[in-house]
Amino acid sequence: MVVPGIGTVGVVSTRHFHSQEDLILESGEKLGPITITYETYGQLGYKKENAILIEHAFTGDAHAAGLHTGDNKPGWWNNLIGPGKAFDTNKYFIICSNVLGGCRGSTGPSSIDPKSGKPYALNFPTITITDIVRAQKLLLDHLGIKTLLSVAGGSMGGMQALQWAVSYPDKVRSTIPIAAAAKNLPQQIAFNEVGRQAIMADPNWNDGNYYDRTRPEKGLSVARMIGHITYMSDKSMEEKFGRRFRETKQAFKFGGDFEVESYLQYRGNKFVKRFDANSYLYLTKAMDHFDLSGGRPLFEALKEIKAKFLVIAFKSDLLYPAYHSEEIVRACKLAGIETTYCEINSHFGHDAFLLETEEESRLIKHFLERVYTEDEENYEI
Amino acid sequence: MVVPGIGTVGVVSTRHFHSQEDLILESGEKLGPITITYETYGQLGYKKENAILIEHAFTGDAHAAGLHTGDNKPGWWNNLIGPGKAFDTNKYFIICSNVLGGCRGSTGPSSIDPKSGKPYALNFPTITITDIVRAQKLLLDHLGIKTLLSVAGGSMGGMQALQWAVSYPDKVRSTIPIAAAAKNLPQQIAFNEVGRQAIMADPNWNDGNYYDRTRPEKGLSVARMIGHITYMSDKSMEEKFGRRFRETKQAFKFGGDFEVESYLQYRGNKFVKRFDANSYLYLTKAMDHFDLSGGRPLFEALKEIKAKFLVIAFKSDLLYPAYHSEEIVRACKLAGIETTYCEINSHFGHDAFLLETEEESRLIKHFLERVYTEDEENYEI
Repeated sequence: MVVPGIGTVGVVSTRHFHSQEDLILESGEKLGPITITYETYGQLGYKKENAILIEHAFTGDAHAAGLHTGDNKPGWWNNLIGPGKAFDTNKYFIICSNVLGGCRGSTGPSSIDPKSGKPYALNFPTITITDIVRAQKLLLDHLGIKTLLSVAGGSMGGMQALQWAVSYPDKVRSTIPIAAAAKNLPQQIAFNEVGRQAIMADPNWNDGNYYDRTRPEKGLSVARMIGHITYMSDKSMEEKFGRRFRETKQAFKFGGDFEVESYLQYRGNKFVKRFDANSYLYLTKAMDHFDLSGGRPLFEALKEIKAKFLVIAFKSDLLYPAYHSEEIVRACKLAGIETTYCEINSHFGHDAFLLETEEESRLIKHFLERVYTEDEENYEI
Repeated sequence: MVVPGIGTVGVVSTRHFHSQEDLILESGEKLGPITITYETYGQLGYKKENAILIEHAFTGDAHAAGLHTGDNKPGWWNNLIGPGKAFDTNKYFIICSNVLGGCRGSTGPSSIDPKSGKPYALNFPTITITDIVRAQKLLLDHLGIKTLLSVAGGSMGGMQALQWAVSYPDKVRSTIPIAAAAKNLPQQIAFNEVGRQAIMADPNWNDGNYYDRTRPEKGLSVARMIGHITYMSDKSMEEKFGRRFRETKQAFKFGGDFEVESYLQYRGNKFVKRFDANSYLYLTKAMDHFDLSGGRPLFEALKEIKAKFLVIAFKSDLLYPAYHSEEIVRACKLAGIETTYCEINSHFGHDAFLLETEEESRLIKHFLERVYTEDEENYEI
């Protein structure tokens, strides 16, 4: 028996699920065959009662915890997932999959279209957060998991967590949307649109057909830089960079002389090595079109939900200020959903869901323990 | 005699001052000959005691009030400048000039370099807010104005107003910085840098050499879109656009289906017709390098100032949140400067200095009346 304690899940590997059935999209279109790339940590209980689905944010991937062989950078939520941690792998079986439409293993615009033998590019169908969740449902069916103890995620991951509770009310025992929103308001749409325009303004984007040639790296890098500003806060930027100049003065007049400039350029240039520009377009559109309410008052859209909610926001979040979370909480209360809300004090802005993990861990740990012990009898396991 | 009352300055025309002397820049470089384009409204008093310099924001111009012949769009601060208005042209002589480095008449990177006979492009020297103010000083010398009753402006205009008070403490009787800052913090630098990167990522930018060929309109448009987000607020965007779709659905998948998207595209496309990409680079750099404190504690940099201050901020300002103005006020108080501060409640974000004009007008009107009547004896007129 493993002695409980704060630890790591160790070396992990990524797996691929190839669905034999087509995915029926919200638009009615069929997409298939699809691949969903995923990782799991911990052991599935013999009653399959302890499965938790972790949803990654916009540019994240299935590698949420542990280390890949030969790598020294742990998964993106390694602080929260592991023995004794918030998502305690001594107790729970954790699944994290790459989103449909992404570019980190799951089917997306850079995948080969079986019809043409070439990458889908813009022939990839428009997808929604609901479609992303439906694809995850195929994976869970494949794993034989009927009910989730919890669905949790930050940012776009929180949107998926919310959509799970609405799409499959009988299959979700709890939902943890963090730094998320029930819908994008025009400011978020605007930031996303500027990123899209930056990509499409790059001649190398070439209407999405760039997979066998130079990629639209400049445009994608600018898009990422915009994103990064919204992920940080004015205070976290001030703490990190101040008005310090970079050490080596650039000869070029507009080469960037402040540290914050070179940091953003560095992050932009790094990002283009790992992310696909068309996925950027498809996934930001999925976020922008996301509206959990489906046009009704939000609380009515939540009426069938049985899940308990833990909603977490962060004080300095520029991208999804706390009032987005408060709107979710208000609707949950109106719908009679048992809801815990916490706004965590942090300077880290939107990124706080990845960085401000101490309070976040405590909240999630206690919440999951309660759901795990209290509700078991109510669900088909 | 004109009967005082709220009115318009009527039809106005733009003038050009061609300086015979070189401008000595902060860097030590000489720039000349230079042209400063300006407009004036009202009459200069016989003692030249009533001159007010209006400073425009980043992409503004000298046309602050009234109408140009054949045009139906008044100047950018027409609500504030005119008979009976805040800047009362029955009493005061108002001057507004286009900034050095701009592209609306005054010398900038798109002007002809006398050395080469071609546009300066990136051979234009790096300029600072201090240089912009020095160029305005040449204009005032030309007009025979020794002392300003006031220097007022919003955003980058506020930076210039602040710099006037520091650069020429004996020549400024009052200063009105609105929605401004004593220095750009990394978040403002970051937004500017993304705009610059968007421009420079456009192959048509061509290292700044595009004046005889296709201009970097796509890059400049993206830069403007980013700017626009920072000029509005989440609330003003929500009020203006909500999640409404544009009326005509675009056939192209990523053509923009929300109203906020088409609005930003429209503003971006309109902007590139009137603004020069290189001016965008030079002026954003001037803002980023602006630091009124000169590296000292800010109040020490203000010690020589005799001007009274009226500092105005707006509650929803995303670009320069009120704490920027509060820092100016704190330093003014520490330096013993008579300072009035008001944070105006508004949903309009940074743009409020152009839109939320009722309270702004009252504050400015009363403040100017007081300065005008109280302080005359202290200044060389």
